[in-house]
Amino acid sequence: MTSTYTIGDYLLDRLVELGITELFGVPGDYNLRFLDHVLNHEHIRWIGSGNELNAGYAADGYARVRGAGALLTTYGVGELSAANALAGSYAESVPVIHIVGAPRKEIQAAHQKLHHSLGTGDFKHFLRMASEISCASADLKAPNATWEIDRVLRTAIFEKKPGFLLLAADVAATPTERPTTPLELITQASTKAAEKAFEEAARTFLTGKKTAVLADIAVQRLGATEALSELLADTGLPVATLSWGKTLVDESAPNFAGIYVGSASEESVRSTIEDAQALITIGVDFTDNTTAGFSGNIDPARQLEIRRSISRVGQELFTPLSMERAIRILTSVLNDVQPQGMPLERPAESVTAEPTDDPLTQDMLWPLVANSFTEGNIVLADQGTSFFGMSGMRLPQGVAFIGQPMWGSIGYTLPAMLGAGLANPQRRPVLLIGDGAAQLTIQELGQIIRERVPAVIVLVNNDGYTVERMIHGKTAAYNDIPAWRWSQALEFFGADPKDSITITARTGTQMQQALEKAAANPNSLVLIEAITDAQDAPQLLHKIAAAL
Amino acid sequence: MTSTYTIGDYLLDRLVELGITELFGVPGDYNLRFLDHVLNHEHIRWIGSGNELNAGYAADGYARVRGAGALLTTYGVGELSAANALAGSYAESVPVIHIVGAPRKEIQAAHQKLHHSLGTGDFKHFLRMASEISCASADLKAPNATWEIDRVLRTAIFEKKPGFLLLAADVAATPTERPTTPLELITQASTKAAEKAFEEAARTFLTGKKTAVLADIAVQRLGATEALSELLADTGLPVATLSWGKTLVDESAPNFAGIYVGSASEESVRSTIEDAQALITIGVDFTDNTTAGFSGNIDPARQLEIRRSISRVGQELFTPLSMERAIRILTSVLNDVQPQGMPLERPAESVTAEPTDDPLTQDMLWPLVANSFTEGNIVLADQGTSFFGMSGMRLPQGVAFIGQPMWGSIGYTLPAMLGAGLANPQRRPVLLIGDGAAQLTIQELGQIIRERVPAVIVLVNNDGYTVERMIHGKTAAYNDIPAWRWSQALEFFGADPKDSITITARTGTQMQQALEKAAANPNSLVLIEAITDAQDAPQLLHKIAAAL
Repeated sequence: MTSTYTIGDYLLDRLVELGITELFGVPGDYNLRFLDHVLNHEHIRWIGSGNELNAGYAADGYARVRGAGALLTTYGVGELSAANALAGSYAESVPVIHIVGAPRKEIQAAHQKLHHSLGTGDFKHFLRMASEISCASADLKAPNATWEIDRVLRTAIFEKKPGFLLLAADVAATPTERPTTPLELITQASTKAAEKAFEEAARTFLTGKKTAVLADIAVQRLGATEALSELLADTGLPVATLSWGKTLVDESAPNFAGIYVGSASEESVRSTIEDAQALITIGVDFTDNTTAGFSGNIDPARQLEIRRSISRVGQELFTPLSMERAIRILTSVLNDVQPQGMPLERPAESVTAEPTDDPLTQDMLWPLVANSFTEGNIVLADQGTSFFGMSGMRLPQGVAFIGQPMWGSIGYTLPAMLGAGLANPQRRPVLLIGDGAAQLTIQELGQIIRERVPAVIVLVNNDGYTVERMIHGKTAAYNDIPAWRWSQALEFFGADPKDSITITARTGTQMQQALEKAAANPNSLVLIEAITDAQDAPQLLHKIAAAL
Repeated sequence: MTSTYTIGDYLLDRLVELGITELFGVPGDYNLRFLDHVLNHEHIRWIGSGNELNAGYAADGYARVRGAGALLTTYGVGELSAANALAGSYAESVPVIHIVGAPRKEIQAAHQKLHHSLGTGDFKHFLRMASEISCASADLKAPNATWEIDRVLRTAIFEKKPGFLLLAADVAATPTERPTTPLELITQASTKAAEKAFEEAARTFLTGKKTAVLADIAVQRLGATEALSELLADTGLPVATLSWGKTLVDESAPNFAGIYVGSASEESVRSTIEDAQALITIGVDFTDNTTAGFSGNIDPARQLEIRRSISRVGQELFTPLSMERAIRILTSVLNDVQPQGMPLERPAESVTAEPTDDPLTQDMLWPLVANSFTEGNIVLADQGTSFFGMSGMRLPQGVAFIGQPMWGSIGYTLPAMLGAGLANPQRRPVLLIGDGAAQLTIQELGQIIRERVPAVIVLVNNDGYTVERMIHGKTAAYNDIPAWRWSQALEFFGADPKDSITITARTGTQMQQALEKAAANPNSLVLIEAITDAQDAPQLLHKIAAAL
């Protein structure tokens, strides 16, 4: 259709450079012409979303698998609907690019009462709002738009936070030149001096100490997963992660201690981490939800801490020092010093499950589900009983786990599963979500069906917000929700009976059979409605709720 | 449960003073204890929403009927999901109070990484965002919380814009005194001097001139509807409204000219308004959507303009002068001066519809629907073919019309209908919405069913965003949506077959029969799936799309 190369095309080409080949969003009259360029782009596919919040969640799930994601919305009504998703990407350090189609610049300049505006004549209200939940934003203007696009993308990728681009219709359509060089990315600085000083301090610090490792999600976000794996493989040191970083390390390995949750940890995990003479923490940020209300008891004097750009040994700080460099240096020091590993009282428990014909309980449900995973699965657990139930299960190698314990927006995982499924179609997604959470974002089932994502959805039907019942209002009416007929969901949202399966499980045996059927039909979309009691919750949730 | 009177109780009592007896929202751990007070309140009923965007839309629909509305969300995840709804209330001048439950003050002061925060240690990000889309906001602190609550409520009611209250859990629970005096509201100032000068200028201006009246939604928002009705009844002057103010005046009266839409108006409406020697405009703000892109041609020299606090006669301004006072003064002047009414070439066309067995078209659909309305109906038309199709239909007296042509957020009307239906259970709501729009907010059907709102829902199934197809991308893939099985909607979302009816209409005759069945079952929830062609749109939409 359009042969002139435009600023909009430039932006799309830069997205492709970041590994983005799917763009999520909802059309609106301020972005329709740009959407023509999206449809015409050789490497980008448009994924129309059920609404903008879902588009934001999908882009976030996509970015967690691909490394970056993007969504396109329209001015005002569209962008604001996605605000919660973008703030979540900020809190969880996921680089998502939010592009917003806006009225033509000269129309904005006339300060008229345009639809989708507040009618104040000020067209910057929403840009200012976006600046609170993005690490870089720009109201693109034609003369320096390509420069500004590069700045925002580069910053978002470096900071691992959302970037925001306000793209007026006329700016998107303005002719420009194709990029002549690849997008220049920022690398984390690391100096030889800091590296050398860190190495010496680490050597002294670790010598002769019983040592353990605690790692969290930032390792994955900052691209240091492989370095961490090598450290663990080389040294065999016992390791735990926080629930945020679940599956960051190989949970099937014999040195995997389990998930550290402060005072709510299994005792063997707690003692391995808190009693270690030297504790190496890598990419760890304590949050209330991942530590049962900051209930951990870690002595900073016994800690060697590796963070994004700074490391600490006791009271000494070393910077600029990138996480990956620090891990590699530490690996070599550990190979020299050979400190004793902190003894593991017992490794993380393997998952065992013996299904029965009794009514399904959470204690039975999660082991059965965990046992059903196979290599390649991407497991998304919503921030309710699903997350707390699954985070304690030891998972096989090659299974990825996605949760949102920092932002904790219920309903997030359903659209995020669509994003994750499209980001890597070779990996079957498994969605674990309660009925309360699923109601918030349910329309995305339509897109999941249309895109033929062969997911397994375990829908825990427990008549409402059980995660909240455990915190407050055990039987209060505000934790109840309308009862939907979940067994009809796939059909209503348009699934073809030929490639979709719905099963209701009320007992362990039925649940086991349902999971086996899902495994036997790897190309089908499978919805398993797992019925559990409204007051039934995983042990970990009880502990954390008590602490909060 | 709680016998101590708290700041939370004070807030609830003040809401009741504003006529609010239903509170919409979604529970979250930062608002659960406050919710105990909501459940215990004698005059407030909690309406749990499908998600926060829907809660905001419902509160907006409620406020349009009751005069004010309120919603309660939780920090971060909840409040941001509602942002689009609140911005809509701002743009459309609807006073909605947004209460957000927040972490305890001393926990905020520790700047820790709490769930539902960005993790920056700054807990004001979202307050700053809210300040862009509310006319008054407060981060409540115990010492002056009641004073601040009064300030925000008073300002919201006066400005007819959202008010925002950040209510930390500990502040909500702090004991306080009951209010000893009613909430003091602000009244619009009006001075005798301004009134007298306006009266004289109006008298001179109107004498001997062929006169017409153009009114819009602000008249309703500012409580001057009755004054306007009396002016029109006394003088018999021809009157038109913009589509935003549809049903503001009695459309069945012989002096109703129709809807003025700038150059897209019916010629008889255009000439009555634009060619009048004296045009009285009351509460009129031109927007792009209501004037086909500011295409009106009104000579300010021939205009007598009454606005919120200022009136204008030719080049003279009169202020402070309240709208209601100005209308009443003008009525008395008109009764004296007796100017000739601008001749109505023909009054607005009555709706006629003769159903046929041909495939249903938009030209047939909207007259049939309009003919089915009876006194008391509240008609909500979503900002797609429904709005443009219905805005030209002359409606019976006693029917209220709700649209959102300024903000224009698709999907708004479905939850807004729940709000309107609960605000006045004596009036049966009728929802007109397309399949594309309905997908954005569909979960609220669950609440509509649970609350037993006996609505009539006309779901126009035309396979996507036809309003956008008319603007751009007539056959583009981005205007398509997943195909749902709409006839199963009520059942999936939990309706009892005893008090719900679903009908699919593919012809005019079938549509007519469906509407008759809905009328014959006034206590049932009725969903009529009206099938029309993807490229079929009302004439008015064609004209406006061309202008935009």
